[in-house]
Amino acid sequence: MGTVNAFLNGCFLPAENAYLNIEDRGTLFGDGVYEFFRVYRGRIFQAEEHLSRLRYSAGELEIKVPYNNVEIVGIIEELISNTAMENGGIYLQLTRGDGPRMHYFPENCCPNFFIVAREILPVPAELYEQGVDAVLLPDERWKRCDIKSLNLLPNVLAKEKAKAYGVYDAILHSDLGVTESTSSSVLAVKDGVLLTTPPGPWILPGVTKNTVLKLAGELGIPVGERFMTTEELLSADEVMLTSTRIDILPVVEIDRKAVGSGRPGPVVFALRESFARLQNICASEKKGFCL
Amino acid sequence: MGTVNAFLNGCFLPAENAYLNIEDRGTLFGDGVYEFFRVYRGRIFQAEEHLSRLRYSAGELEIKVPYNNVEIVGIIEELISNTAMENGGIYLQLTRGDGPRMHYFPENCCPNFFIVAREILPVPAELYEQGVDAVLLPDERWKRCDIKSLNLLPNVLAKEKAKAYGVYDAILHSDLGVTESTSSSVLAVKDGVLLTTPPGPWILPGVTKNTVLKLAGELGIPVGERFMTTEELLSADEVMLTSTRIDILPVVEIDRKAVGSGRPGPVVFALRESFARLQNICASEKKGFCL
Repeated sequence: MGTVNAFLNGCFLPAENAYLNIEDRGTLFGDGVYEFFRVYRGRIFQAEEHLSRLRYSAGELEIKVPYNNVEIVGIIEELISNTAMENGGIYLQLTRGDGPRMHYFPENCCPNFFIVAREILPVPAELYEQGVDAVLLPDERWKRCDIKSLNLLPNVLAKEKAKAYGVYDAILHSDLGVTESTSSSVLAVKDGVLLTTPPGPWILPGVTKNTVLKLAGELGIPVGERFMTTEELLSADEVMLTSTRIDILPVVEIDRKAVGSGRPGPVVFALRESFARLQNICASEKKGFCL
Repeated sequence: MGTVNAFLNGCFLPAENAYLNIEDRGTLFGDGVYEFFRVYRGRIFQAEEHLSRLRYSAGELEIKVPYNNVEIVGIIEELISNTAMENGGIYLQLTRGDGPRMHYFPENCCPNFFIVAREILPVPAELYEQGVDAVLLPDERWKRCDIKSLNLLPNVLAKEKAKAYGVYDAILHSDLGVTESTSSSVLAVKDGVLLTTPPGPWILPGVTKNTVLKLAGELGIPVGERFMTTEELLSADEVMLTSTRIDILPVVEIDRKAVGSGRPGPVVFALRESFARLQNICASEKKGFCL
């Protein structure tokens, strides 16, 4: 029997033994939401922000979250303890539940809720030191990307396309301008201003991005939330991706053209330094999560 | 133990006992495709058309269909026989398979393939006789609706919104014009021409719609495949929805305004008559499916 690294509808069990009925609406329709938390030295990073976004996403779909925040943190802490996790990732998924297939929300539907805890490989240090490359691709996603839903096929296809191009990620753009990448927020530095896509239904409200914007404020870096054209992005001084998984990753090449000097710049360096302090504070906390 | 009405990865079993791992990519990403077949008097209707579309959808996602058409029809026939099904529906789903969550297509991924067979309630006769009502809603879906994928949350939300408005369905429209409904194609009659959205990434290639267009040709009704504005749809002489589930259903009211005379019109009547002949031929066939 494998490590007890998952929780499903009230039971702790190994993820490989955790199953959902084929008529779970998550699989039939993507009718559900998810969150991903980082764990540093056994402590959950930014639990409150992720749980708040989970409740927003679930609320938009009218799915009831079956546990309160204290209960969810308790479940995650038990999984961290079971797996003796040091640095890892916590995937949480909530679907509307099982029901014979029909588009309408079924009445008396009981949500399916699961969490999987896994150690994750650290992002290789050279990616932070040297930066990564990206390709610009059209944003083919739906119009409610503010909901962290299970409808992720366009993200999967764009990531796979980036791989086929031989680059790290795809940066998406729509008629509005640059939106975000396949699983990260996109920020750029132009004339000393940290620019990023304004919040709205076209992007996910990034937990890491919002932290980065706050840190920029503390560092005295002016922030502008407005759409950038792809030309503006290509001519930026610095570009970076932010997400819970990668924190802050410099992008030094887009569509085979160097961004700025072609090396990670001073703003991304300063922001990474500030962000690392938050991660270290989390890792040194006594309690299971850090707010 | 319930009726053996499902097939999952090589096993026949009751649908309530058929489970997928929580890390099936269908549930994590909607990384899969589906089809829905009708059964009339125990015979599969338009099997070849649905299987051909399944292979198109799976091909676009680079998912290998693990059975050939003869094998799939054989599985469906066994389910029809097990359930003593007369008039029912066959839901078939294929996902990329299980794998620890990452956006890239995993290597050596083994697809999950299942089929569920169920009797379905006939659409009430009065809906065909009196027609249904609909509301116009913005099309919030992704840009590859030609793939019959599991990313169906916008369809679910639009159907639920239609219910909240107290109408049968939502007809979606984008910057291009009218696209389709939440789970049906949309056709309209204007000045004697049967109009419908041209094929492309904005809509699913409807099996029933394509049959209806052929039947229209046989009946001498001119067909035009071009985008309609919402104004054109509202001022059409007749509007109809087509799908495998409902076949051809007249729409007599949109956004609380009567379509044409406010009653099902002569074109929908003629098309329904021709279509019923195909259904009857299917139901009288000796072999399990009709081409």
